[in-house]
Parts: sequence; structure tokens; C-alpha cells
Amino acid sequence: MYRTHSCGELRASDINKEVALSGWVQKTRDKGFMIWVDLRDRYGITQLIFDEKRTPVAVVEKAKTLGREYVIHIKGSVIERESKNSNIPTGTIEILVTELQVLNEALVPPFTIEDQTDGGEDIRMKYRYLDIRRNPVKNNLLFRHQVGMKVRNYLSEEGFIEIETPYLIKSTPEGARDFVVPSRMNEGQFYALPQSPQTFKQLLMVGGMDKYFQIVKCFRDEDLRADRQPEFTQIDCEMAFVEQEDILTIFEGLTRHLIKDIKGIAIHDFPRMTYDQAIKIYGNDKPDIRFGMKFGELNKVAQHKDFKVFNDAELVVGIAVPGGASYTRKEIDKLIDWVKRPQVGALGMVYVKCNEDGSFKSSVDKFYDQDDLSQWAEITGANAGDLICVLSGQTHKVRGQLSALRMEMGERLGLRKPEEFAPLWVVDFPLLEWDEDTERYHAMHHPFTSPKPGDIPLLNSRPGDVRANAYDLVLNGNEIGGGSIRIHDKETQKLMFDHLGFTPEEAKAQFGFLLDAFQYGAPPHGGIAFGFDRLVAILGGQETIRDFIAFPKNNSGRDVMIDAPATIDTEQLKELNIKLDL
Amino acid sequence: MYRTHSCGELRASDINKEVALSGWVQKTRDKGFMIWVDLRDRYGITQLIFDEKRTPVAVVEKAKTLGREYVIHIKGSVIERESKNSNIPTGTIEILVTELQVLNEALVPPFTIEDQTDGGEDIRMKYRYLDIRRNPVKNNLLFRHQVGMKVRNYLSEEGFIEIETPYLIKSTPEGARDFVVPSRMNEGQFYALPQSPQTFKQLLMVGGMDKYFQIVKCFRDEDLRADRQPEFTQIDCEMAFVEQEDILTIFEGLTRHLIKDIKGIAIHDFPRMTYDQAIKIYGNDKPDIRFGMKFGELNKVAQHKDFKVFNDAELVVGIAVPGGASYTRKEIDKLIDWVKRPQVGALGMVYVKCNEDGSFKSSVDKFYDQDDLSQWAEITGANAGDLICVLSGQTHKVRGQLSALRMEMGERLGLRKPEEFAPLWVVDFPLLEWDEDTERYHAMHHPFTSPKPGDIPLLNSRPGDVRANAYDLVLNGNEIGGGSIRIHDKETQKLMFDHLGFTPEEAKAQFGFLLDAFQYGAPPHGGIAFGFDRLVAILGGQETIRDFIAFPKNNSGRDVMIDAPATIDTEQLKELNIKLDL
Repeated sequence: MYRTHSCGELRASDINKEVALSGWVQKTRDKGFMIWVDLRDRYGITQLIFDEKRTPVAVVEKAKTLGREYVIHIKGSVIERESKNSNIPTGTIEILVTELQVLNEALVPPFTIEDQTDGGEDIRMKYRYLDIRRNPVKNNLLFRHQVGMKVRNYLSEEGFIEIETPYLIKSTPEGARDFVVPSRMNEGQFYALPQSPQTFKQLLMVGGMDKYFQIVKCFRDEDLRADRQPEFTQIDCEMAFVEQEDILTIFEGLTRHLIKDIKGIAIHDFPRMTYDQAIKIYGNDKPDIRFGMKFGELNKVAQHKDFKVFNDAELVVGIAVPGGASYTRKEIDKLIDWVKRPQVGALGMVYVKCNEDGSFKSSVDKFYDQDDLSQWAEITGANAGDLICVLSGQTHKVRGQLSALRMEMGERLGLRKPEEFAPLWVVDFPLLEWDEDTERYHAMHHPFTSPKPGDIPLLNSRPGDVRANAYDLVLNGNEIGGGSIRIHDKETQKLMFDHLGFTPEEAKAQFGFLLDAFQYGAPPHGGIAFGFDRLVAILGGQETIRDFIAFPKNNSGRDVMIDAPATIDTEQLKELNIKLDL
Repeated sequence: MYRTHSCGELRASDINKEVALSGWVQKTRDKGFMIWVDLRDRYGITQLIFDEKRTPVAVVEKAKTLGREYVIHIKGSVIERESKNSNIPTGTIEILVTELQVLNEALVPPFTIEDQTDGGEDIRMKYRYLDIRRNPVKNNLLFRHQVGMKVRNYLSEEGFIEIETPYLIKSTPEGARDFVVPSRMNEGQFYALPQSPQTFKQLLMVGGMDKYFQIVKCFRDEDLRADRQPEFTQIDCEMAFVEQEDILTIFEGLTRHLIKDIKGIAIHDFPRMTYDQAIKIYGNDKPDIRFGMKFGELNKVAQHKDFKVFNDAELVVGIAVPGGASYTRKEIDKLIDWVKRPQVGALGMVYVKCNEDGSFKSSVDKFYDQDDLSQWAEITGANAGDLICVLSGQTHKVRGQLSALRMEMGERLGLRKPEEFAPLWVVDFPLLEWDEDTERYHAMHHPFTSPKPGDIPLLNSRPGDVRANAYDLVLNGNEIGGGSIRIHDKETQKLMFDHLGFTPEEAKAQFGFLLDAFQYGAPPHGGIAFGFDRLVAILGGQETIRDFIAFPKNNSGRDVMIDAPATIDTEQLKELNIKLDL
């Protein structure tokens, strides 16, 4: 037996017990006649003491040879510690060692196995198995497991059934790129890895399964942005005989349960906002509503003077930064530089200081008088002491720029509190979005999303204005889930394929089975999918998903630890009936 | 709102309630003035009644148009049923319908949606979404979900952490063939889909995670035997600081818990048997021990006479079939034909009838006297009334043949009771097995399995005799799990790679990261993996895994419903830097 207890378990009440422990050597202190070793395992750290007077000489000698991260097994008795350490739960005791066995030696690790390590991202990824020994990573993985269990148990209690859908499916050109898998047994043919189990979960609804969920890996062969992974995990859900309201209610319940259970925080409100409102008020379809700085549109009150920049702009819009009136000229200049960075892309920024005495001082005093500026303050909700920041230009762009500024100021002012949770439903998403590259409309969500029945007549005249029964769940400025009520009749689905530029043949070749299925009694249905990696990260009070994935890939889609992808044998290619074409 | 209740929910206590239901039309009976409809959803069937006297005329007229599998929504009141149906929980009530809405029409399904359907396997697979509406398939999927939840909750309670390992990994030529995935971003390189998370779970142990599990999809590009799938699900587990005994204990606990919780059956014994014993006594490394018919080896008592067939044989071995002495000559001839079928492959069969009066009558009376046959009876454990069946030939083959006969007789005699559960550990598997094709030794389990320390010296002289710290969990004649204590030091791992014919370069290229990891303090560790599909099937009292998979593939690895795999665009191939080579 390798251990009677874990390294996080022993307390003062265990004093005098004979115990066996196993673990890694965190550190050693050698005073010559006495050696202390911090022994670590998943559960904590226990101090070992090797004392010349009380420990066999050979054992003390062996203890002197121990290096960092050696794996050892010891026996000894629990004794009271002289200098207690109140920072760790085992801090009142130590083990007086009588037997020591080195289970495995260890090279000096390439970075320290400490909460604050000296290792950079790259080296930690290459030696991820050592990185996982560190508390921050280990605790993230334990946390992820807890969240997963809570999600499963909650949904199962609510009558949802977890059903595994296939990983080897069929490639569909719609949406992101598929990863494909050559089939050896079916020459010249390929499977694809699922971007989501979308069609299968819809078929399960046709199959009467009613309430489905799955925590499942999905795959997208996209050029990776920071913090995207080619394989990611989804909480995938679908329900039949439901309307949008039913789905929002159920998944409010799940979100409320998770935040309550994990964070001890009771969420009362799940406010809702239309996509149009979100864009207008926050410049963003996933606004962080933990703080204000709502957009104030200033066209009416700013385009009547000779300020050409504003007069030429499609949109003039501002936010009131709390307390910003006290910023120095230098600070404001730096802010202007910030919005002019290529990542944000504004051409400039107009500002108005709202002085404590009720007067205003702006960068455009030449054009606007105190009455004008007072109107700006009213529209942006600025109070005395605030700084109004105004951007102008093309509507779509300027909203994005001001949204970036708003988030930055929220961050700088400490308004994005990691332990505060503010969920929000954004509803009524557009059905279609224009794609500049292909010069056609794409499904914003996916081609199975149902249009709002009243908007269907607009499909021909103003396709961009058609709204969908689609919704996103936003938490603290991150989209954590998104879904829709699906089309469940063959006719509407055909109409959608038409508008997405599928020929009937293409539609049949790719989704024939779904169109077929719709002929055999498809119920009304809809669903939602949560990005599990992100959900866990946000619940963990962080925003980087990579820290919550055991073995993440880098931005080139490489696993630098195992060095994948890699070349394969010519023989293997031949069996698969493919060859390289470089 | 589509429904206030499900179709399996209403009882006599609900009489007079106004309700809304939705579901599928199971069947209709039209008596002209009155129409009954059986409405079905996931939860059951509720009878609807449309009565000319009490239901609006238009509603009755619409009801007359309903076809099988139409999806409808109704409102009405719960009333007492005149002729009660005690076969279904809702059999005491029916719904007097006042409103009817057809949510979706349905073509006549290609097979009946009944427990006993008229549809063959092929058509049911093509329309799997309709097959899932049938109770037997639906219940299997619900059952699978329940088993999955119980496994997760049990292991989680035991301190195991579910950690997701990557799906896009690296190809390794050892073992079965990998499915590979061309990488667009890394030209000329490929990911592989995991045959199991083996190396990752070992790295998690090096990472200190201690108790890991995952219910995870695995992939093998093998020529499929009946009842194998290219993608299958594993309960994958690993523990650190454990010996074989610890692992057997923990997973006995899991198995005991599942059988108790799901079947209400308390398992007392988990007998153990070495691989050698299992082969000797049952001719099989996964014996069904719910019944006897143990092998009796007869060489000593059968090779001293002039019967050339036995004298030439490497092994003469028999079983006693209970009650078989009463078989007619014709029945015995049919049994002989059965063992001579190519699937079994015996050249013939000698039999001995053990008469009730204590005398024997055999097919080889010319060579053996009553004393001889009495010895056979003693060795095979035959009682008066039994039939001793004896096969002979090359040891390996004849054991397989007699094992097949034993299983067949167990089946015929009703000894393989689906509601009886008899687990068994088979331990001390050989480390290596000879592969005729490649003419070298392969790892029987996998290359990370540790040899029994005492057997290591045999690696050079008699590699086939080296035993491993490897074990299988057998349930009712099926291997449901298998695992081993792993090698945790670099030297032994190198030794293994040598014996498996890996050059140091190959070992480094393929498993360098694991060998590296072993240098940084790997703990002793071991694990087990259960075939989840099979475990669920056996717990469900069946043996066909396909019936417990929502969307299975056929024997050519095809999903006939979505018609995958399929050809992909030349454009797509080009992006992936590959071309077809047919």
C-alpha cells in the first residue's frame, strides 16, 4: 500500500498515528542534523522531518539525496509541529519519518512547480504534465470537473437525457471549415468531424427524445484567434414542443443554479434585450452590463454646427466615463492614442469634461457652446465629474470602437468585477448576415434557425432585416450560450436553403436526411449550446479558456507537448488512398 | 405552451382537469360518430376521444384526417375511460378533445412504430430517427443515460476527476489503425483520432491528478467484425500510487454498485482466475462462469489405447453436458455437425453417454472400456445422465472449439440467464503475443503495460511466457473492462520498446514526450478502461451494442442515415494539401 492518507489530510487529531504517505518533494531544508521535506500530492502538502536523533541514519542519509520533484514513499508517525504554519491545513503537524523509499527520481523541472512559476507560456505548454502539478492549473481542472458534474446532474434532474451523437459524420460547406477524415474502407470518401451535433440533435427531436443534452467535443478548422481552440467543448441541448420562452426559462434555471451552487451568489434578474438594442446601447451583441456607460447618440445635438467631422459622420456617439473629468491632458491624450491604435481604429476622439461646478470644457469648444454640451451630458447620462468621450464615423465601425473603449474603461475603473455575475439574454438576432467575401447572405446562427413568422415576407425585399427566433446568453460581456427555435417543416427549410444560395441538389446532397426527416412528423423544437470552456473560465473568474483545458493547442493548432500534428507514413497514406499535394 | 402534461402522466386523480398535450398519432380508430386517437410522446400514450356529441364538429372533422405519426397539439378535459386498459399507466382515463391543431403532417413511415416492428435492420438504420421513436430503442438510450450518470456520480464520489483529453492527437503505428485528420494549417501533417486516451491519462498521473476518469469516444480504423464500431465509448480510468489490488477493489466497487443500483442484485463474489487457468478450464480468456461444464483434460487417460486420433492429438479435452445422455442419435449427429461447421472448425467429436445405471456408452467403445470411460467421467465431472463431449487436436485450436461448444450448450440449456450477473477477474495476462503476420511479438495489452518484475529475466529467453500486471473484468462471458499497472520508469519502458521492435528513434519520435515525462518524477500508476457500449448492453440484458447506440454505423463503417462518409470538394482537398490516389 502506497499510502494510508493523502498529503492534505492529517491534522492535530491524528498525532501519534503511524502513517504512510506518497508524493512529490516540493522542497527540502537540510540543517545537517535535521532535514525537513515538504511532500506534495493532489490534496496538499505535509511536512516530513528526518531527525538524526530519532530517524535511522540510513534514512537520514537517503533524505539528503532527495531532489525537487522526486517521487517518494515514507512511513512515520504524526507528531506536533514546533513552529506551526497556519497557511496550510496540515500546518500543525509533521511526520517523523522512519522509512523512506524513492519511487522515482526526477530531473530538475524546467520551471518551478509553484503557484507563481518562473516558466513562460511556451515552456509550460511543452511540459504541460508538470504545469498541471501547479495549484492554479490543477484547481482549474478540478473546478471544470465540478461544473461538468453540476451541469449533468441538473439537466438530468430536469428530465434531459444525455445522448452521444457520432463524431465521424459528413462534411458540409456551410459555416466554418470542417476537419475531415479519409475513410480507408470507403475509397475516396471522407468523414468530417462535427462542428456541432446540430443535425443529430434535431433528428433526436424528430425521434421523440424531447429533452436532449450532451457535453461534447466539437471541431472547427478555423484560423485561430487568440483564445480559440480547434477542438472545444459544448453543452449541447435541444427540446421539443417548446417555444423560445420555455428554453429561456429552463436555461436561466441552469445558469442560476450554477452561479448559486458554485459561487453562492443568487441571481435575481435575467434581463432581456434585443440585438438591435444591444448594438445601439452598447455597440456590441454581448454587452457587459455589470457597469453603465451606455451609449448616447448625439447626431441630433451635434450636427447643427460647423464641425465637419461630425457633420460628415453617419453616427456621432458618446459615453460618460465616471470620474474622468479629473484626467490630466496627458491622460486624455493617452486615451486618444488608445482609441487610435489599429486594433481599435478610431480616427480621433472628442471629449467633454463635466466640471464639478456644472460647466463643461470640451475639445471642440470652438463649435459647441455650454448649452450644446449640456445636451450631450444629458444624452450620455454624464454627471458632474465625468468625462464624455465621443467618437464618430460609419455607424458599424464607430459602435465597435466605442464598445472597445467602454470595455477598456470598465476594466481600468475596476467595474468588471470577477465575483459579480450579470447574465443577459440578447434576443431577436438577425436571421442573415452579409458576407463580404462571398458576396451573399449567410445564416447568422445556422441554416436551421427559424425566421420570425411575421418577418418572412421581408426575405425577398430586405433579407438583412429579417429577425430570427435566436438568442444568446451573455455573462459579464461574454457570449456563453446561443441557440434558436429551429425550422421544423420542410417548406420553410427549403425557403431558407434557397435564400442561402443552396441549389435544391446541394441541399439534398448535404441535408437530404434532415429534409426527409421533416416529412415524417417533426415536432416544433429548439435548443441552445453553451461554450463549456468559456463558461467554466468565467465561473472561475477568469477569461482565458486555455487555463481550463488540460491539454490545449497553441494558435497554430499544434499540441507542442506531443508535437502534433505530424507527418505520417507513405504506407498509411496509401492505405487511405490519398497523397500529399504540397 | 405546447403541453401542460406529458402523454404518460395523467391518472384517475386528474379527472376533470383541463389539459393540453402534444405528441405523435400512434393510431386512430374511427367509428364515425366517435374517433379515438392514441397520442404518444417520450413518456407514454394517452387516449384521446373525439365525440360528435361533445366535441366541436370542425374538430371531429379534422380528427378524421389524422394519419399515423402526425404531430398534433390538443386541448381537452380528462375523463374516466369506459373500457379501461390495465396495460398502460394512463389506461383509466382519456381526454375529451375540444381543440386540435396539426403541428406537422407525416408521410406513412416506412415501418411500423411499434415494439415489434415490421422493419428490417437496414431500413431502420436509414430512418434511425423513426426507429428511435420505438420503445425498445428509446428505452435503451434512456438506460444508457442512466448508467452513464451512475458511473459518473460514483467515480466522482470516490474522488475521481473527469478530465477531457484531446481528440486531435498524433498517429502511432502500434496496435490498430488510426483514423487521421489532415491539418490545413500545418502542411503535409496529420492529426490522429485517439484509439484511447492512454498516453494522456498517464501524463495526468505524472501531473499528479491521481484519480482520473473520462467517458470518452475512441476510434479504431479496423475491418469491422460484427458488433464492432469504428467509434466507440470507453469509461477510461487511471490512478496513481496504486497496486493492482487497489484497482481491482475500486472497480469491483463500481461494478457492484451498478449491478445493485440498476438491477437490484447484490454481487457477493468477484472471483479471480489467472489467464492460464481461464484458458485451461474454459478455453477462453473471458469465460461465462454462470454455468459449469469445465474442461477435463483427458490426455493421460485417453492416449494409452489404439485410438490414433487421440494419440496424435496435442490435447484431448472434454466437457460434461448436463442431461445430454438422453439425446437421440440424431440429436448427437446434429451436435457433431455443429462443431464441424467452419465457424467452429472441429474435425469430429467423440461422445460418451453416462447412463443412469452407471454404465457408459461411447462412440469409441471399440477402444475404451468402462473403466476408461469412468475415468473420463470423473475428470470432466460428468454425472449419470450427462453427455461427455470430447474434442482433440492442436491445443490452441481445440480449446477454442470446445469453448464454442460449451457456450452453445450453455445457451441451449438456458444456463446463460440474462438476469444473472457473474463477474470475474482474469489476471496475469501474458505481456506479449506473437503476431503471425508481422512475425514479431506485439504488446498484448499495450506497450505501457508493466511486466511482472519476477518475469523480466524471461524477456530474452521465453518472451511469450512473461506475464504482465494486466487484468480483465469479465461479465457473463464478455470482457467489459481491461487494464494494467503501467511502466513508470524510463528504463523499463525502453526495454519494452526494444522488445516490441521499436528503434530508439522510432520510440522517441512517437512516444518521446512520454519518455521525457517519465524523467520528471512519474508515480507508480495503473488503470482500467471499460467498453461502455458493451457494459450498457450487458446490464440491459442484451449483447448487441448497436441497439444501445443512438446513431450506429454499419459493418462498412457507413452511417446509412446521413450517407457518410462521402466525397468532398476538390477545393477542400486542395486547402488540405492532399489529393486522391485511387
